[in-house]
Amino acid sequence: MALLMEHQFRQLPADRQVETRPFLEAVSYLPPFFDCLGSTVFAPIKADISGNITKIRAVYDSNPARFKTLQQILEAEKEMYGAEWPKVGATLALMWLKRGLRFIQVLLQSLVDGEKDENNPNLIRVNATKAYEIALRRYHGWLVQKLFKAALFAAPYRSDFLKALSKGREVKEEECLEKVRKFLINFSATVDAVYEMYNKANADLDYTV
Amino acid sequence: MALLMEHQFRQLPADRQVETRPFLEAVSYLPPFFDCLGSTVFAPIKADISGNITKIRAVYDSNPARFKTLQQILEAEKEMYGAEWPKVGATLALMWLKRGLRFIQVLLQSLVDGEKDENNPNLIRVNATKAYEIALRRYHGWLVQKLFKAALFAAPYRSDFLKALSKGREVKEEECLEKVRKFLINFSATVDAVYEMYNKANADLDYTV
Ligand SMILES: CCCCCCCCCCCCC/C=C/[C@@H](O)[C@H](CO[C@@H]1O[C@H](CO)[C@H](O)[C@H](OS(=O)(=O)O)[C@H]1O)NC(=O)CCCCCCCCCCC
Ligand SMILES: CCCCCCCCCCCCC/C=C/[C@@H](O)[C@H](CO[C@@H]1O[C@H](CO)[C@H](O)[C@H](OS(=O)(=O)O)[C@H]1O)NC(=O)CCCCCCCCCCC
Repeated sequence: MALLMEHQFRQLPADRQVETRPFLEAVSYLPPFFDCLGSTVFAPIKADISGNITKIRAVYDSNPARFKTLQQILEAEKEMYGAEWPKVGATLALMWLKRGLRFIQVLLQSLVDGEKDENNPNLIRVNATKAYEIALRRYHGWLVQKLFKAALFAAPYRSDFLKALSKGREVKEEECLEKVRKFLINFSATVDAVYEMYNKANADLDYTV
Repeated sequence: MALLMEHQFRQLPADRQVETRPFLEAVSYLPPFFDCLGSTVFAPIKADISGNITKIRAVYDSNPARFKTLQQILEAEKEMYGAEWPKVGATLALMWLKRGLRFIQVLLQSLVDGEKDENNPNLIRVNATKAYEIALRRYHGWLVQKLFKAALFAAPYRSDFLKALSKGREVKEEECLEKVRKFLINFSATVDAVYEMYNKANADLDYTV
C-alpha cells in the first residue's frame, strides 16, 4: 500500500475522459489492497477484481488506438454486441470493477475523515460497512450480504491497517492519513467520472449476485 | 456433470501409483461440478481448485518424463525445495486439491448411500456437512467454517442437483445414482491412493486458513 499511495491516478482532463492505458496501470496496484486486509478470506475478492482488470486489458490490447479511452470501449462494445450489451465484455468487467473501486474509495475516505465507532475506536467495521452499503450491498443477494457480514470479522484493526498502508516504513498515523488524502483526490475524481459515464450511457445494471 | 460421469478415472495399477497425465485429465472435468451447485457463491471454490490443477499441470509440463507419476513430483520437489517443502509447489497444490476431491467423493457417496435428513429429504445439507467435516473442517479457522455454514444455504435441492448431474437428459433418479456409483469406484480409489501417498511421504500439513 505504500505502493498504492505512490501510484497516483492521473488528473482528469477538462473533458473528464479517462484514458484506458494509464487507468489500467493505476488500478493494477489495487489488488494488493486486499492483502493489506490480512486474511485469505479476501483472496476471492482480490481474484474477482484482478479478473475484471485482466478482461479490460485484453480488450484494450486487442486495439489500443480504438480503445484509447474507457468511453470508446463502451461505445464500441455497444455497437458490437447489440442486445447482449451491457452485460458483456469489458463493459461488464468495468461495471463491477467500479463498484470495488468505490468500496475502496469510501473506506479510505471514511478513515481519513476520522469516522469511528466510539466504543471500538480501533475497529474499521463501521468504515467498511459504510463503504459496503454505498458501493455494493444493493447488488448482492441476501446470502452474499450475510457472507459479507461474516467476513467483516476478518477485517484488521485500524492501527494495523494504517501500518499496512505504509508498509515497510515507520510512518506516523497522521503522515499516513495525509498520503491517503492526497491519493484520494485523483482517485475519487476518476471513480466519479466512470460512474458518470455509465449513467450517461445507460450502461449500469442492478441485478444481484 | 453428465460429463463428469463420462470421464472415469483410470483403474489403479497394482502398485497404486497414480500417473500424472491421466490424473490431470480426469480432474480437469471436476471444476464444473461447482457450477452444478448452481450459485455464484461457489465460484471462489471452483477458482481455488482450478488454480491447484493449473499449478500441478505447469510442473508436469515442465518435464513430463520426470514427473510421470504424482509420487515422482513429491520426491523431486522434496529434493528441490529442502526446508520449504511440503508447503510449496505442486506438493502444496495437490495437498489442497485432494481435500476438495475428498469433499466431492464423500458428498457423492453419501448421496448414493441414501443418507438423508428425514425432515428435509430434498436438501443435501446433511450430505454436504458430512463431506465438509471429513474433508475440510479441521483445515479451516472459525471464520471460514462460519462462511461454509452460510454458504450451505446456497446448496441446491437434492432433486435439482441430481438433475444437474445428468445435465441435458431426462434420466431417472435411480439411473443417475447408478452412474455416480460407477464413477465413484476408480475415483475413490484414486483419492485414497493420493492420501496414502501424502501420509507415507509425511507431506501433509494441518495449518488452518
Ligand atoms: C468451504 C468454505 C465455503 C465458503 C464459501 C464462501 C464463498 C463466498 C463468496 C463471496 C463472493 C466473493 C466476492 C465476489 C462476488 C462476485 O460474485 C461479484 C460479481 O462478480 C462479477 O460477476 C459478473 C457476472 O455477473 C462477471 O463475472 C464479473 O467478471 S467479468 O470481469 O468477467 O465481467 C464479475 O466481477 N463481484 C462483486 O461483488 C465485486 C466485489 C468487490 C468487493 C470489494 C470489497 C469488499 C471487501 C470486504 C471487506 C470486509
Ligand atoms: C463482498 C462479500 C464478501 C464475502 C467474502 C467471503 C469470502 C469467502 C472466502 C471463502 C474461501 C473460499 C474457499 C477457498 C479456501 C482456501 O483458502 C483454501 C486454501 O487454499 C490453498 O491455500 C494455499 C496456501 O495456504 C495455496 O494457495 C493453495 O493454492 S496453490 O495451488 O497455489 O497451492 C490454495 O488452494 N482452500 C480450500 O479450503 C479448498 C476448498 C475446497 C472446497 C471444496 C468444496 C466446498 C463446497 C461447499 C459446498 C456447500
